[in-house]
Formats: sequence, structure tokens, C-alpha cells
Amino acid sequence: MVSFESDYIAGAHPEIIRKLTETNLESLSGYGSDHYTESARQKIRAACGLENAEVEFLVGGTQTNAVVISTMLADYEGVIAASTGHISSHEAGAVEYTGHEVLEIPGREGKISAEALEKYLSDFYADDNHEHMVFPGMVYISFPTEYGTLYSQKELSALSEICRRYQIPLFIDGARLGYGLMSRQSDLTLPELAKLCDVFYIGGTKVGALCGEAVVFSGAGRPKHFLTSVKKRGALLAKGRLLGIQFDTLFTDDLYFRISRHAIDMADRMKKLFQAAGLPFYLESPTNQQFVILENRQMEKLKSQVAFSFWEKADESRTVVRFATGWSTTEEDLDALEKALLSL
Amino acid sequence: MVSFESDYIAGAHPEIIRKLTETNLESLSGYGSDHYTESARQKIRAACGLENAEVEFLVGGTQTNAVVISTMLADYEGVIAASTGHISSHEAGAVEYTGHEVLEIPGREGKISAEALEKYLSDFYADDNHEHMVFPGMVYISFPTEYGTLYSQKELSALSEICRRYQIPLFIDGARLGYGLMSRQSDLTLPELAKLCDVFYIGGTKVGALCGEAVVFSGAGRPKHFLTSVKKRGALLAKGRLLGIQFDTLFTDDLYFRISRHAIDMADRMKKLFQAAGLPFYLESPTNQQFVILENRQMEKLKSQVAFSFWEKADESRTVVRFATGWSTTEEDLDALEKALLSL
Amino acid sequence: MVSFESDYIAGAHPEIIRKLTETNLESLSGYGSDHYTESARQKIRAACGLENAEVEFLVGGTQTNAVVISTMLADYEGVIAASTGHISSHEAGAVEYTGHEVLEIPGREGKISAEALEKYLSDFYADDNHEHMVFPGMVYISFPTEYGTLYSQKELSALSEICRRYQIPLFIDGARLGYGLMSRQSDLTLPELAKLCDVFYIGGTKVGALCGEAVVFSGAGRPKHFLTSVKKRGALLAKGRLLGIQFDTLFTDDLYFRISRHAIDMADRMKKLFQAAGLPFYLESPTNQQFVILENRQMEKLKSQVAFSFWEKADESRTVVRFATGWSTTEEDLDALEKALLSL
Amino acid sequence: MVSFESDYIAGAHPEIIRKLTETNLESLSGYGSDHYTESARQKIRAACGLENAEVEFLVGGTQTNAVVISTMLADYEGVIAASTGHISSHEAGAVEYTGHEVLEIPGREGKISAEALEKYLSDFYADDNHEHMVFPGMVYISFPTEYGTLYSQKELSALSEICRRYQIPLFIDGARLGYGLMSRQSDLTLPELAKLCDVFYIGGTKVGALCGEAVVFSGAGRPKHFLTSVKKRGALLAKGRLLGIQFDTLFTDDLYFRISRHAIDMADRMKKLFQAAGLPFYLESPTNQQFVILENRQMEKLKSQVAFSFWEKADESRTVVRFATGWSTTEEDLDALEKALLSL
Repeated sequence: MVSFESDYIAGAHPEIIRKLTETNLESLSGYGSDHYTESARQKIRAACGLENAEVEFLVGGTQTNAVVISTMLADYEGVIAASTGHISSHEAGAVEYTGHEVLEIPGREGKISAEALEKYLSDFYADDNHEHMVFPGMVYISFPTEYGTLYSQKELSALSEICRRYQIPLFIDGARLGYGLMSRQSDLTLPELAKLCDVFYIGGTKVGALCGEAVVFSGAGRPKHFLTSVKKRGALLAKGRLLGIQFDTLFTDDLYFRISRHAIDMADRMKKLFQAAGLPFYLESPTNQQFVILENRQMEKLKSQVAFSFWEKADESRTVVRFATGWSTTEEDLDALEKALLSL
Repeated sequence: MVSFESDYIAGAHPEIIRKLTETNLESLSGYGSDHYTESARQKIRAACGLENAEVEFLVGGTQTNAVVISTMLADYEGVIAASTGHISSHEAGAVEYTGHEVLEIPGREGKISAEALEKYLSDFYADDNHEHMVFPGMVYISFPTEYGTLYSQKELSALSEICRRYQIPLFIDGARLGYGLMSRQSDLTLPELAKLCDVFYIGGTKVGALCGEAVVFSGAGRPKHFLTSVKKRGALLAKGRLLGIQFDTLFTDDLYFRISRHAIDMADRMKKLFQAAGLPFYLESPTNQQFVILENRQMEKLKSQVAFSFWEKADESRTVVRFATGWSTTEEDLDALEKALLSL
Repeated sequence: MVSFESDYIAGAHPEIIRKLTETNLESLSGYGSDHYTESARQKIRAACGLENAEVEFLVGGTQTNAVVISTMLADYEGVIAASTGHISSHEAGAVEYTGHEVLEIPGREGKISAEALEKYLSDFYADDNHEHMVFPGMVYISFPTEYGTLYSQKELSALSEICRRYQIPLFIDGARLGYGLMSRQSDLTLPELAKLCDVFYIGGTKVGALCGEAVVFSGAGRPKHFLTSVKKRGALLAKGRLLGIQFDTLFTDDLYFRISRHAIDMADRMKKLFQAAGLPFYLESPTNQQFVILENRQMEKLKSQVAFSFWEKADESRTVVRFATGWSTTEEDLDALEKALLSL
Repeated sequence: MVSFESDYIAGAHPEIIRKLTETNLESLSGYGSDHYTESARQKIRAACGLENAEVEFLVGGTQTNAVVISTMLADYEGVIAASTGHISSHEAGAVEYTGHEVLEIPGREGKISAEALEKYLSDFYADDNHEHMVFPGMVYISFPTEYGTLYSQKELSALSEICRRYQIPLFIDGARLGYGLMSRQSDLTLPELAKLCDVFYIGGTKVGALCGEAVVFSGAGRPKHFLTSVKKRGALLAKGRLLGIQFDTLFTDDLYFRISRHAIDMADRMKKLFQAAGLPFYLESPTNQQFVILENRQMEKLKSQVAFSFWEKADESRTVVRFATGWSTTEEDLDALEKALLSL
């Protein structure tokens, strides 16, 4: 059955598999000290337009969020996030496990507004009792958000300005970064995004890799003895080559961006299919995740022909569901979806 | 200057000081194994109508919340609380420090409703992805709440019923328990409250003691090797006598309840003074904390004559402030307040 | 340059690469719910002779140790290990990061003796003050140990018997399990080892996989909601297929054992080369890691021809170094080593 | 029965009780912001000869150790201590609970030698793999030690010099500081000790107070937002007056030193009683704790007349026991001990 269940249903981009095969029997040193990993670092720095940025590779998204947040926060600090942020609700409390609170602020379609952030910070410092409260020590946003929406350059600049004024780092969860940057509605380039934040990661797991996220410290710099802190959290991969080779491949000949753009093209066609079928959207998403509202009866029927994700109940008779495209989505997959929609 | 700044501005009730003095040179064993502590346990069990309840003494409120919550939750669980709950916002992230999330749900005047709780729990289990989320493993409420409000017997019974249905403990933060139970609007007795929850504490710090909170495990029972877990959290007092003697005194001849009732009487008179002065209340509180809204100009003037607490800005020109009575508040204190209010 | 630096210098066994390539574009569900992972579980159960064992896959060794230990210990417990145990000294404090102490006892050539364990446990419970101490809640051993040595069936049975008597689980770190079981000196089979402990893992990273460790709960059972606890620790892999397919391949047609035996054969030849060269061994290791003592002058010379690991200084003029074989070691590698040794 | 069980068997020095009584009804602000606490800080600074030292008050020893260590260590660091150090074995893993390892090194009669420390540190940095290990980030010693022994000025200077060379703070656990400084064998004054370390605490619980330890940051300075970190650990006392008033009293007219000296005088007489009785000492202690070896038969007999502590088994027929004097020990207590010893 054709699947739009998520953007991690396939293995790796064939070019990555080819490269892993080709290099398989080379003797390489461990823990990210091999030359493929170094090459990947260099290519990512170039793509970000940041000659001196430090780049580190981790295995998965929740792990990356917990490692970055817990190594950059001071003891008395927490991280601000939208209440719909991935760290707020879908990571089983991984940030709290490191001893830090996620300070939730209400978002809109997955996004934090500059106004809400400014208010949170100014209210905090205006409170006489703030020494009894968790200090806001970082801002976490996702690009694209968990709802597929994007920050515009103007919106991101506003958040960035506030963070710099309050001297707290801005961290961007880029688990689906490629799908955000390659959206036709994005007015941000990778170097622009990199400069507006202090640390972010380039998601591999959802964009062509078997696993792996590339953390870029574009601002203040990597926490001291970062490798040791990564090891302490059980997040240090012995065969760092597995991450290095994958990212080296993804950042050769713009592969990362090309496959991201393909997923966006597929999502654009998918949107048209939903419109043609008269299905209402839960919100307007310019990226690879599309949220539509189905009558429960429609949902049951569709389920038998294509795979998708339950998102939430809209009301008693209707359900919000998610369809995701990815680098591996094909025109044939969409043909099958089109056919299934016609039968509703 | 007369002070209504909090309910912990004075030392201990004179009867406690007398008892500490009287027993001072006795040789007693440490860590809560002395006979005064045992006597305090017995008297508290009797007052709760729970012959077999386990009773343990800790030093302060934030410590008690963190110890109880972190020893009773399973690894994969968090604790539900109102977003205005003390653990949610005013304990510097002490629960998160233990590795567990506080799952905030919106409250009303400090209280969680049975509807909101039921919805949270049923939504959680309805979500296909709940294995990626923090399991709700306990419900935390305060009696009285941080806003001085009270749960009625009916409201508490409804919360209790839901907790039992979902098999998660209900924990009551009783930092000001006496002021809640002795309120004229409370329809709950100590034994009734004890039976409706699984664990709660009887606050000493704010109700007559120098320090100390008595934790009562009325339901499921004290976590195994609790003393070791308390020690591990740096919360075990060497001279347990300090806590035992104080609670033994507070639960002799109903002292705890008598001094609580006195604070309520003082609060009732205080309310009348505010009404007479035409000051609006922020909300209707039946306990020892009263929240009134002052014009900023009034606030400045009053500040020079009586001490009180800033609570939050109501708007640009008005501020919510808190006045607390306590066991040590006197009629003379209120006379001074009355005089100060007349001058506004 | 030929390398004996570690047993994780190569990628994956070619059969694994072939299988990853072959399955690459299949749509599979995430987080270990795919059919390859289920097949791997079944094959591992069969290999262990444990029909009902629960099998879970994690990414790396330090992560696996921290996850297993922290989810199985009670709050007031720590884990006993040899002071040379991997968790004691080479995991950057990963166990302590979870809030639990590693209770070190002296070992001999990497091994804990039944006598030392029995003494530790009986002394602990004999101490009047043990409630102020960390309770021993698990025993951790490595098979083979960090020094390449092995527990005999008799030794393991004795440790197992003590653990069962004290009702604490015995956990075996099997990062190099294949190299232990396939040693000609081992008198233990996988089913025997599985039955003598409560939980252990079958190392993949060092035995043919790109990454991955298979945890087998042979005794008391997997901690409740284990997936959530894994997620909370940032250790849940989105594309669980990466682990499932690798272990499914390793446990097809005894691949895991065949490649382990190959490494042992290579180590046996390597030992003979060292003996022929008159180099003293630091200790007698029957597995894939060999520790020899080199004159510093010899070490410098050898370094330019073959790669190996510094282990520790023997004295001012001599150094202990480690040579590891692995599934990817070839006769040609050993020929090169032989040649290099002749030139010393 | 007369008791030498510990140095915390009595309440507080009568002068403290008098002062608590006298100030009891004063309205004071909380959390250490009252004027008695400020006065105590000033007096302690003066006694230490450190005009600018920051002084903070905490409730108990284990808590103080965990708070100081965890707020001063970096993420990747642990604390070096003797394997007999209080934090190593008798605090239920309180340091590990904060996520940091206690790096144990062998001691002698409770003391770390400069040689052992130097070796540990130089070995660590000589190891190629030290990035996979816990960095030594602090040295913890006790003065006097858990065995009652003392560091001489020369020994402490040597440790201090090494710490400064490696740029890691030296932390002195002074739970019994007075009994160390007032020992006739101590060649250190409080200002000298303060200058040789970076942070230490002046124990109150065991030296005349009901509870309380005064932390002095003599070197690098108090961690930023220390109050918030203290609150986060559940260690912030609402009625800070309880600590402030006690230390203000202890540091008025040298009370702390006078009562410490008294305990030493009592210990000196006690030693003579043991010598007269022909009882062997386990080691030579110049402070208030005396360790003697009793035949088990003697122990049983003595137990019925005086209280003391079990320390450890010497062999099958003999036991090491501890007798402690304290500020509250009287000549009458020693008369009773003398009588009991005569009957052995």
C-alpha cells in the first residue's frame, strides 16, 4: 500500500547507500575523527556561509534537542518553546530528563510570535520573585514547525533580535530543514537562517539519511568538551563514519536541497489533489506535511488504500489527518492517492 | 512597620519555642528515630483518622513536592498540575530537576476542574502516539490553592474518583492546609481530605513552625526505602527532633487548628476592612491570603505604612497585591492596617 | 596502513550492506515496529533458547548500559561493577548522569569474583547505617571483559547464584559477546549465558554492524513502557529498520557466530606472531583483544607500520598496547603485522 | 543513659535557643534576606579574614555537599574524593543524583595525599582517551576527616597548590570544622584554611546548632544565581532567619570556637580514659571522634551502660566502635563513661 505516513518510511537516498557500500571496508578512526566526517563538516560550513562554524553529528532529533539544550543552558535556566513544540509534547520528557524545564508559551499554527516572546521575557524580569522561577535561557523554534508552517525572514529576524537583546541563544530544530528552505514560500536561505540563530541542526533522518542530524554552532560556539558531554548522554556513535559519510554525500552537488525540493514538488501536487477532492485543510502548510480534515467515514475508506497519520479529532464526526511527502515520494505514489481520493 | 507580606514572617508559635527549649538538652537519636517524632506521627495519624498511615517529616515545601513527586512517579511519568500550581512556576524547576515533567493544564482561580482533568487523561490515552509522550502519573493540587481558593468536598471527590479510575495517585500540597480546613467556607475535614487523596502534606512552615512539613501517605503507601531516597536528595535532617517536636506540639490540644482558625478570623476582619475602604478584590478568597487591586498611586502610599506583596500588574495603572494573615497576626496589626486604609 | 586499532574500524559486514541496499526503498513503519525488526527478535530468541524473552534494539554500548541500568534500578539503588568495568571509567559518567552510582569493587584481569561480590553484599547489609548508603541493586559484568578475559561457566554460575539469592539482576555487557562465545576457551553457550543472567546485550557495533546492540531481557522482564523510557533518554531510533535489518542478517545462517569465530582465528594467529617475536603479554586473553608490552622504542617503530591502541604505561620504558582483530581482519593484515614485527 | 553516639544528640547551644526565643515574634523577610542573616555573614567574613567572601546558609551537610559540588562542576566533570569520604559512601548517592561522578582515590586514615592527587591528575591528562572519561573538576576533602584526622598546614598547602596548578577548586567539607580547628594538633587557623581552598563550609549541625551549614566562597566566587539553584534543589529555607540567627549567635564572642574547644577538652579526657582502660585505638584521632577496638564481649557489656556507634568489624571477635564528644558533653558524662569502663 502506498504510504504518506511520515517522511521516514524509506531507507536512505540511493546515493548514500552507494557511498556507504563503496567506503565500507576502509579502516577509519572512530567517534567522528575520520576524514569523511571532516569533509562533511567543511561542506556544511560552506553551505552555511560560515567558515568557522563548529559542526557536530548526532543520531536523532530528540537526542539532538536534549544534548544541545542541556549543554547550552546554565543550571538555573530553562528553554522557551511553543506549547506545540516537539520538545514540549512529543519527546517523552527528554529535556526534563536533563533537569531543565521547557517553558511553554502559546503559539499559533506552531509558531512563536515576537510579541509573545517579548512579553514572556519582560514579564519574567519585571517579577520581583523571578529568582524563585526558572530563568529563560534559550529559545527553541522549529523550521518548519510541527504543523509544516514557516517563519518568514522578518519573523525570524524579530525573534533573533529579541534573543540577542536578552543575550539568550536562539536554537532552531531543523529536523525537516530542507523541506522548509526549499518551500516556494520560504524567503530564507540557509546562510541567512544560520546567521539569525546561534545553533541549529540540519535534519538527516527525515531528509534522505538512515539517521543523523548535523548540529551547526553558528554563534556563541560549541560547549566546551562537547564530545565528553555527548558521550555522557549515551549519544556518541562509535562508527562516526555512518554519520559523516551520509552528510558528506548529502552536501555534495546540492543533493540535500535537490531531494528536499522534490518532496516539495510532490507536496504541491498533493495539495492540488486534496483541493480537487474538495477536502478542507486544517491549516495552510507550505511544506511537505499536509493536514486535511476528513469525515470519519471518508477516513475509514481511505485507510484501506493509502497510509497516513492520525493527527487529532476535529470533532465527533471529523478527524485531522496528516499526509507527508518526502525525498522518496514518487509520481506513482500520487497517482495512487489521486485514484483513492476519487473513490471517496 | 506592620507586615502582611506573607505567612512566614514570624518565628514559631511560642508553645513550640517553649517545647524546643524544654527538650533542648535531651540526648535523642537522629534522622527521625526519636520518641518525639514518633509521638508526632501518632498524633497526626489520629487527627487524620488513619491508624496505619505512614507519616514522614521534611523541611520545606518545594523540597517536599520534589521528594514526593519524584519518588512516587515511574520513570516514564510526569505530574499533572494547574499552570498556576506552585510546582509549575514558583519552584525554580525543582520537579524537572528530578527528571520529570510537570504537565500543566489550565486552571481557574488556581483550581483544576474534574472536566479538564478527565479530558486530559482521555485525550492522552486516545492518542495513537502516546508512547512518545510523558505518561500522566500523578495529579498535584494545592489546598488551599496559590490564590487562596478551596476545593469543595464535591470537587475533590470528583478529582479523586478520576484519579482512582486511572490508577494514578492524587497528591495534595497542604503548605497552608490549616488555613484551608479552618476556613468557614470549607466543607472538608482532615479525615475526609486524607481519604480522598493518596498522599498529602500538612504544612508547618506557614502554620506555626520554624520549618517542617508532615507528609502523610494515606493511600498506596510510602515508597520503599524512603529514608534513603530522602537522603539522596539532601533532604534528610540529622536532628529530626527539630521537626518531630514541632509537629508533636502542633498536634497537641489541636494547636494546629486553633492557630489556623485565628488566622482565618484575622483574614475575615481584613476582608471587611478592604470592603469598607472600597477596594476591589482580585478574586474571592475564603482563606488567609487576600488579593486586592490597588491604584498604583494607592499602592505607593500604602507601601510606606504596611508591608504586603506585589502579585501582578492588573493593567497600566493598577496592581494586584496580596495581604496574608497568619497565626501571628494580631488585632493590633489589623488596627494599623485599618488606619492606613483610611488615609488612602 | 594496516590497522588493529579497534574492532570498529570497518563499516558493516558486506551481507548487511547488501541487505540494507536490497530493502532500502521499502516503506516501513518506524521505531522498531517493522517486520525486519520483528524477525530479528524471533531469531535472537531462538538463538538464546528463550521463547518468551523480550528483545529490544539500541544504537550503541554506552547508551545501552545507561538505558538498561537506569530503567532497572530503583531510586535508592546503584550498580556494582569492577573498577575496570567500562561503565566505571570509560563512559564519561553516563550512569551517574542518570542519577545512580556505580559501586566499584576491585576486579582481577577485568573480572569480579564471587567472593568479592558476596563480601560486598553481606558487608552492606551488616552495616547498621546502610539506609544512608546506596543499595546494591544490580551487578554489571562484561563478557568478554575490557581486558579480553572470560568468565567460565562455573564463575558465572557462582555470580548468578549470589545475585538470585540477594534478588538483584545480573546484567552482562556483551559489546563483544560473539568474540567471547566463539573463543576456544569459552565453556559457555549463548543459551547458557542467557539463562544465568537477567538481562544482557548482543553487541553489533563491534561484531559486524554499523551500529546497534540487541538487549535481551532473559529474566525479570523488560521495564514497563520501555519504549517511552528509551525515547526520554534520546535513544529511540526513528528508522528502527536500520537496527532490525542488521540483526536480522547477523542472526541468519549463524552469521554473527561465523564472523566472530573468524576474528578469534585471526587473534589466535596474532598471538603466535607476538610469541614468535618474543613480545611479552600483559595478560592472557583468549579473545579478540591482545595486550602486549612493548619497549617504547619498539612502539615508536611499530607505530609507523601498523595501527594499534595505547593502553597504559607499564613503566618508564615500556608501554602496554592493545591489538584488536575483528570480523574484517584478513590474513593479509596479519601478514603485514608479521612483517612489521620481524623488523623490530 | 549517657550517650557518645554522635555529635548531634543534643538540641542547640542554650545561647542559640535564647536568641531564637528573643527574636521569635519579629517580622523578618524570608530566604536569607533578613538582617540577622546579613549580620552572620559579616561576622563569618571577619572570622575568615575575607572581606569580600560570599557566605550562604544551607540546612544540612549532605545537602551542602550536593549543592556546592553540582553548582560548581561543569557538565563533563566529576569530583575527586577519598574512597572513605562522606560523599563517596555515606550520602546515599546524593552527588550522583545531580548527575556527577565521585572519582574515588585511595586515602589513608581518611586523608588524600598530594602524591595520590598529583598522580590521578597527571595520569588523567596523559591518557589519550581522556575525552571518554569524567574530567576531574574539583577536589573534596573533609576537615577533620570522617576518621577524625586532620590535614596539617603543609599537607593542605600541597593539595591547594596542585588544585591551583590544574585550575580546579578545592572544597573542604567542614561539617565538624570547629572540632578540627580547635584540636591541639591543628596548625591551621580559620583564615589560613579559608585562603588555601576555594569553597568550604562551617558546620553548624554538629557544632552547636539545631541545623545549618555556612558555605564560604573564599575563592572563585559563588555560582551565578545561586539562590535559584538552591531553590531548584529544594534546599532554600523559607525562614532563613533560623539559619541566620543561629550563625549570628555562634559567631558572636567566639562562641563557635569556645564550644568546639570544650568538645576537644572532653575528647582529650576521654582518650585518657580509654588508655587507662587499656583499650586499643583504631587510629590516632586528635579531634572529637575517638575510634577504639573492643572485644565483642566488652562491647556487649558497655552497650548497656553508655551509647556509642558501631563503626566496623575488626575481625570475628573484635569491633571498631566510635565515641564522639560534642559541645554538649559534660564532665559528668565522662565520669559515667569512666565508671562503665572500670566495670569491663
